[in-house]
Amino acid sequence: MSLPYPHFQVNYKLYPGTWGSDGLALAKTIERIGKQTGGNFVLTPQVPDLRLIASETDLPVFAPAVDSVSPGRGMGKRLPEALADAGAVGAVINHAENRDTLADIETKIERCRAAGLDAIVCVDSVEMGRAVAAFEPDQLLFERPGDISTDRAITRTHPEQIERFIAMRDDTAPETKVRVGGGISSAPDVRQAFELGVDATGAASAIVTAEDPERLLGEIGEVVASAE
Amino acid sequence: MSLPYPHFQVNYKLYPGTWGSDGLALAKTIERIGKQTGGNFVLTPQVPDLRLIASETDLPVFAPAVDSVSPGRGMGKRLPEALADAGAVGAVINHAENRDTLADIETKIERCRAAGLDAIVCVDSVEMGRAVAAFEPDQLLFERPGDISTDRAITRTHPEQIERFIAMRDDTAPETKVRVGGGISSAPDVRQAFELGVDATGAASAIVTAEDPERLLGEIGEVVASAE
Amino acid sequence: MSLPYPHFQVNYKLYPGTWGSDGLALAKTIERIGKQTGGNFVLTPQVPDLRLIASETDLPVFAPAVDSVSPGRGMGKRLPEALADAGAVGAVINHAENRDTLADIETKIERCRAAGLDAIVCVDSVEMGRAVAAFEPDQLLFERPGDISTDRAITRTHPEQIERFIAMRDDTAPETKVRVGGGISSAPDVRQAFELGVDATGAASAIVTAEDPERLLGEIGEVVASAE
Amino acid sequence: MSLPYPHFQVNYKLYPGTWGSDGLALAKTIERIGKQTGGNFVLTPQVPDLRLIASETDLPVFAPAVDSVSPGRGMGKRLPEALADAGAVGAVINHAENRDTLADIETKIERCRAAGLDAIVCVDSVEMGRAVAAFEPDQLLFERPGDISTDRAITRTHPEQIERFIAMRDDTAPETKVRVGGGISSAPDVRQAFELGVDATGAASAIVTAEDPERLLGEIGEVVASAE
Repeated sequence: MSLPYPHFQVNYKLYPGTWGSDGLALAKTIERIGKQTGGNFVLTPQVPDLRLIASETDLPVFAPAVDSVSPGRGMGKRLPEALADAGAVGAVINHAENRDTLADIETKIERCRAAGLDAIVCVDSVEMGRAVAAFEPDQLLFERPGDISTDRAITRTHPEQIERFIAMRDDTAPETKVRVGGGISSAPDVRQAFELGVDATGAASAIVTAEDPERLLGEIGEVVASAE
Repeated sequence: MSLPYPHFQVNYKLYPGTWGSDGLALAKTIERIGKQTGGNFVLTPQVPDLRLIASETDLPVFAPAVDSVSPGRGMGKRLPEALADAGAVGAVINHAENRDTLADIETKIERCRAAGLDAIVCVDSVEMGRAVAAFEPDQLLFERPGDISTDRAITRTHPEQIERFIAMRDDTAPETKVRVGGGISSAPDVRQAFELGVDATGAASAIVTAEDPERLLGEIGEVVASAE
Repeated sequence: MSLPYPHFQVNYKLYPGTWGSDGLALAKTIERIGKQTGGNFVLTPQVPDLRLIASETDLPVFAPAVDSVSPGRGMGKRLPEALADAGAVGAVINHAENRDTLADIETKIERCRAAGLDAIVCVDSVEMGRAVAAFEPDQLLFERPGDISTDRAITRTHPEQIERFIAMRDDTAPETKVRVGGGISSAPDVRQAFELGVDATGAASAIVTAEDPERLLGEIGEVVASAE
Repeated sequence: MSLPYPHFQVNYKLYPGTWGSDGLALAKTIERIGKQTGGNFVLTPQVPDLRLIASETDLPVFAPAVDSVSPGRGMGKRLPEALADAGAVGAVINHAENRDTLADIETKIERCRAAGLDAIVCVDSVEMGRAVAAFEPDQLLFERPGDISTDRAITRTHPEQIERFIAMRDDTAPETKVRVGGGISSAPDVRQAFELGVDATGAASAIVTAEDPERLLGEIGEVVASAE
């Protein structure tokens, strides 16, 4: 396991202002706020920017996707070893915007492990979480697709689902970390997530489209630091 | 159109020894041989290495894949604008190891154009080439999937198909460049390709698994230079 | 070519009331109206109902999908020969709700031809139509995805696109028939489509969710008969 | 649960001689041998033939594939309700030749349940079986892809994997039935499978390409009958 816990993950997705030099500038801001507040931040930039951000900041970065491939043929595929070489410490599997077959989830977890990447697998429900827990990934991201890009944080709307999720994890894969996402938009959401027992939380649009990302990140950093 | 013609494309795919610092070292060798021989080389590394090679060499690089997405959501997708920012001058669409829907081919060509990337579309046959020519991509790569990773160069086995392909291009999309691939393994193959009228050719396994890549690239560079 | 022209196609999709005995009853109504009005109707039921409707009515039926497979392995795939044996006279390729790769479009057209099925390929635009026309399918269905399940018939909103589409067909694949769809909801829409020069038109939701399908089909049947 | 246990499943896939009237004739042979021997046989024909075989024989039939759709739009999709109406008592999910995303596996199981179909989910390994067991499907089919269409029955090559699989089922989803497949080619293979504790077994190529299918089915029927 390479990612620090607890943490708040900033997910760039493909949002304007998050790639190339803009993305690096935002990453440096995140890095600075992390140091100021003492809260751990981790970052998921686009694949072409992994090396740039990993080499220019101390933020742990992980890849937003990975393919179930080994060295050799496979034009255009994301090879775990090449992601690791570029500085990624993990990779996301089965994101709601990029679904994987069950067979690929298993293979991707194995390939990530072989390449030294944390395997982070996204699931929609407690049941889907239990299914993936059978493979003992490094992290399960519990995120209901309908909450993504909204401000309806599951921590507020369905806290009992988070509690059931954590109980399931404790029961079936106690070494696996739990992150919760989808609609997390504010420091109070983050606080509530940690109070419910998660190991990590994070956001995409709430951060990168915020009016004042620096202030928001500062408030979140304080909460993460106090959860440590 | 950003790529120089005529050229020989080296395709790294996921072959061992082609990513990270190894891939950069090979790219520098290719760059040096290009300057020594006067032949144009272009390179297709993995996506995490685009920026590294584009910033450390003068080789034109292009992305091995691209997604039909625009800025915003789209976790894990390859955004044309982010590829261009990393230094890519083009992107490959519909590779035999990564097939696209017809709808996506059309959208990807449009998105590449908007982001300033050359759109390079792979096809299997003269008929499929004619289909894609309707969208007037920057380059058509004519490659028969069964020839990939073999030494059965289409230039030797089916030269008449290359001639038909070029006649089709002249007829339907005269501005589109034609590259031929699949089994091209030696300087004589490259010479024959140019004699048949192609604008470019290239190889993956023949180069990156060659016993003496430097000598092979040198011989090819001479042929490319003489085709200019 | 097995389908009669001109015709109006009724597309069942998965709408309630269109499978099993309900679907057969509606098919018999369509058959009767066709005979009464003299207008040709053709029907696209679900695959499990092809044989039922083909054997119990005289309507030409075609399959809503087909796979690019040959006899042998291929669990769950739709084999052209098995569809033909069940009574289908054609099959739909590249529907907007079921996109195909360009390579599969080519293979599916060939496999349909070998099995004696009309190949009906859906496209979104004149440019995509031109691309597929390179393979000379039996029928091109021109349907803009955004119009599907609406009442914004392209015949009313963009008649010039239909004219350009037909000119493209005349120019590149004169043997291929043109059907237009997407938002066709009334007899006047059908009349306008034929006046613009199409060989066929059709609808799904407008028919199967109509308040009085029998009256609507009767009006359409009259228009089709007068277009013959 | 609709399927009888223990049983031997005959899987037609797309093999020559298994669709239309040929497939019906073979189904009648299977039905007759089942009655003669007292062993349960179940059959997986192609989708266009489900109704034909369900109505002309007493064999339980199930669909080789199903889609995660509900009534409405969804051109070409296999609607659980329409499969059930045609006579299917179950449907196959996640076959090695037709992989499903984890999200679709969950939805397909729910949709099958709602339509009254047994959900039969294919898995490659004990670990993948444990993952799917979280959804409590009616049947888990344990089949290693590399064994398909060979005569290397897992019952002979890896009996301990079957035992581990059954122990996993007993532990996590005791109501779920276990079928084993992949390389099962003879009555001794079937006997060994039942001795290892499976609820069902089956074959595709071994039956439909057998020199004397009737004799082979007769021997298998005796074994199934004795396992009841």
